[in-house]
Amino acid sequence: MARGERGVTPQSEDFSSWYNETVTRAQLVERGPAKGTMVIRPYGYRIWELLQAELDRRIKDTGHENAYFPLFIPESYLKREAEHVEGFAPELAVVTHAGGKELEEPLIVRPTSETIVGEMMAKWISSYRDLPLLLNQWANVVRWELRPRLFLRTTEFLWQEGHTAHADAADALRETLQMLEVYTEIARDIAAIPVVPGEKTPGERFAGAVQTFSIEGMMRDGKALQAGTSHYLGTNFAKAFGIQYLNRAGTQELCHTTSWGMATRMIGAAVMAHGDDKGLVLPPRIAPYQVVIVPIARGEAAEEVDTAARELAGRLKAAGIRVHVDDRPQVSPGFKFNDWELRGAPLRLEIGPRDLAAGTALLARRLDAQGEGGKVAIALDTAPQTLAAALEEFQAFLLRRATDFRESRTAAVEAWPEFAQQVTVGWASALHCGRPECEDEIKAETAATPRCIPNAAPVESGICVRCGAPSAYGKRVLFARAY
Amino acid sequence: MARGERGVTPQSEDFSSWYNETVTRAQLVERGPAKGTMVIRPYGYRIWELLQAELDRRIKDTGHENAYFPLFIPESYLKREAEHVEGFAPELAVVTHAGGKELEEPLIVRPTSETIVGEMMAKWISSYRDLPLLLNQWANVVRWELRPRLFLRTTEFLWQEGHTAHADAADALRETLQMLEVYTEIARDIAAIPVVPGEKTPGERFAGAVQTFSIEGMMRDGKALQAGTSHYLGTNFAKAFGIQYLNRAGTQELCHTTSWGMATRMIGAAVMAHGDDKGLVLPPRIAPYQVVIVPIARGEAAEEVDTAARELAGRLKAAGIRVHVDDRPQVSPGFKFNDWELRGAPLRLEIGPRDLAAGTALLARRLDAQGEGGKVAIALDTAPQTLAAALEEFQAFLLRRATDFRESRTAAVEAWPEFAQQVTVGWASALHCGRPECEDEIKAETAATPRCIPNAAPVESGICVRCGAPSAYGKRVLFARAY
Repeated sequence: MARGERGVTPQSEDFSSWYNETVTRAQLVERGPAKGTMVIRPYGYRIWELLQAELDRRIKDTGHENAYFPLFIPESYLKREAEHVEGFAPELAVVTHAGGKELEEPLIVRPTSETIVGEMMAKWISSYRDLPLLLNQWANVVRWELRPRLFLRTTEFLWQEGHTAHADAADALRETLQMLEVYTEIARDIAAIPVVPGEKTPGERFAGAVQTFSIEGMMRDGKALQAGTSHYLGTNFAKAFGIQYLNRAGTQELCHTTSWGMATRMIGAAVMAHGDDKGLVLPPRIAPYQVVIVPIARGEAAEEVDTAARELAGRLKAAGIRVHVDDRPQVSPGFKFNDWELRGAPLRLEIGPRDLAAGTALLARRLDAQGEGGKVAIALDTAPQTLAAALEEFQAFLLRRATDFRESRTAAVEAWPEFAQQVTVGWASALHCGRPECEDEIKAETAATPRCIPNAAPVESGICVRCGAPSAYGKRVLFARAY
Repeated sequence: MARGERGVTPQSEDFSSWYNETVTRAQLVERGPAKGTMVIRPYGYRIWELLQAELDRRIKDTGHENAYFPLFIPESYLKREAEHVEGFAPELAVVTHAGGKELEEPLIVRPTSETIVGEMMAKWISSYRDLPLLLNQWANVVRWELRPRLFLRTTEFLWQEGHTAHADAADALRETLQMLEVYTEIARDIAAIPVVPGEKTPGERFAGAVQTFSIEGMMRDGKALQAGTSHYLGTNFAKAFGIQYLNRAGTQELCHTTSWGMATRMIGAAVMAHGDDKGLVLPPRIAPYQVVIVPIARGEAAEEVDTAARELAGRLKAAGIRVHVDDRPQVSPGFKFNDWELRGAPLRLEIGPRDLAAGTALLARRLDAQGEGGKVAIALDTAPQTLAAALEEFQAFLLRRATDFRESRTAAVEAWPEFAQQVTVGWASALHCGRPECEDEIKAETAATPRCIPNAAPVESGICVRCGAPSAYGKRVLFARAY
């Protein structure tokens, strides 16, 4: 589609404009009145619900229980863990007045809940029998953003935050990695994003963590997006909040805690990992409408065709397919085709009087292996099976395409000029000395940052791609420009 | 159980202490660090999730879509609807500082979202084709409470708030009543509370509403609790926010809007509608564990019995029953029995070596028609069917019991002394003049307020029970002391 009245800026021209126009015109989200906030519209919220359902099930299957902790945290709590407050202080929103009076102690609107959860865990845990304590909450959090971007960095966002306490480091680290694996699965199997799980370098750690792990996805512009994080917090929060237990030998010990979160940011990740110049391309497993039926008929035939479309929709729904009939009388079929391309519906079915007479409908994929992909006639009789298979195939195709793209845009680099070039188009896998100052120089010069030290990377050492000092970590580090 | 170390204050002695002790000892909830906030613990949150799933399904089945609006509302928005701001001003929490700076305009932490939703609806609606617009959000809201009570009145609570816009008054009112009916169904069919749906008198209306409807439930102390509200807002918010549409004739018209909400307060309602001196009594449809299995065996037999308990739990789970095996080695069976009575598990199954040899288990109901109810042996073979039926029966029994209780504690009263007496034990159905000053006098003297004008009440008129003036509303009003 040429860039027209309803078209969006092409990705190649300005990826950032493409993104903003796409998410708003596709009616996923728009700006809220207070700076940096977002209104998640039904089409966007449905994607979140579908992600939530998958993630919540896995969180429960791994033994966690949901709970809910207060939005407001006394200011003094945040100050108990020194690194934590230092990291979050610039981003806090503060309630100073309530019920018509000035508060004695200001309340922080939670930016994350380690402190208040820590306070409660200290009350609930007394013996080794209470461990591990495996909690999760679905909540909104607030972090004041200077450069907000819809879904990616908003003043308020929705997420889940897991918080767990364990008897020892080994168990807590096992948990941290288990949840990283759950996030990897959600990204890969549900959002069709072949993320790379790995550990953050010390400079990129969560404020208060001993180790931070993340999953990193590649967007269509070659940049990286952190789509979930999992932290091993050691005994830092246990010390600050007194989370202790009596072990089997009758001695008091500090717990080892973890936290991990995945947010509405994932919606932005899916948009940027699959979208194209026509707009969104939604993986079927998170598409609000997996199949959109467009009845095409005028005059006398219209009623018969509309009825057939609704009847077909009923059969697809019964087969577990999320289907929508676009029967808007005021817009043309062409308008609808563009609209559902913009909104990323995986499959579109057209039905007209002649199709109906032949017992068929025309199936169009949002995109396919050959690029544009023509329309194919499918039998109405067996449409539920045909479409269920087509959806599976489309989901697999998107993951394959994203994997191929990531591989084509990732390169192992050994020398600095090569590195600087590679991060303009994609990801650079390089040996690094591990010094924060060296990371800073790399960032200043190329805008690239260490995304993670991939868990799966083979053991390797040598010299730093930037400064020539001996490499750290015993592995390559993935560097990229990032959202 | 006598009042002992783990017992709670009897209801008859002090209902309020009974409630606070029960919800905290049963591990539903506890106080959060900031004044009036609550921490919903996993056992309490699971009840909320079960209510949520039922309510969310009905909200979607009636054509609504979920969305998410920002937590922070510019102060100026609230001021646009005069009655609305007047009603909520004393309860607001205000963010004055964020990102390390004082904000130019303070942000209100939403007490409810009519204003911000109204602002967005005005952007989204242009033609009659956009109507009705049927939205809902699941969210936290904040209302500063002077006398907080866990679940019933907390500074922050969780709820859903529906917001809809319609072409005319008739459609908006139909919606308002439809959602009241949905709430009635949730209360009755899920929480086993036979609520009375009706309209609020003008003095009890939501700030900014033309008509407010509520469902009122009777608690075990005879008081009333408002468990959900549905408001017809007329064109009040449409005027304040410019929610207009072009009708078929090409003329601009104001929309008629509605809003409706049900909150975590429902958990408190279920506790107070069914609980007794032993603690919680949970209706099976909202019980986190519907069946608790207690294996009873020592020494060599323990392993065999534990295995059998787990195997049985697997079969119950496969049959869709929420089951828990209490295999804590450190506490006695007697302790467990008391504990699960306190925590309100509907059914308890005991299995020992002799039961196992006989292929049976002992079933105890949390309470039954005869009061204490003995234990009965059930066959392990057919346990899933037997227990599924027992759960249905228990659910129906609780609703019947609550209905009988409500009826026995509700009386039509004609004279003032009778009225004053009746509201000390339950609800009084009386004719009233409708004057706010008369309502105030009644409240000052008896602590009773008009709960609602029941939708189902027959047409009736006469003189006011209090002042003798001609009655209003053409129906009796339900008066009660309330939470």
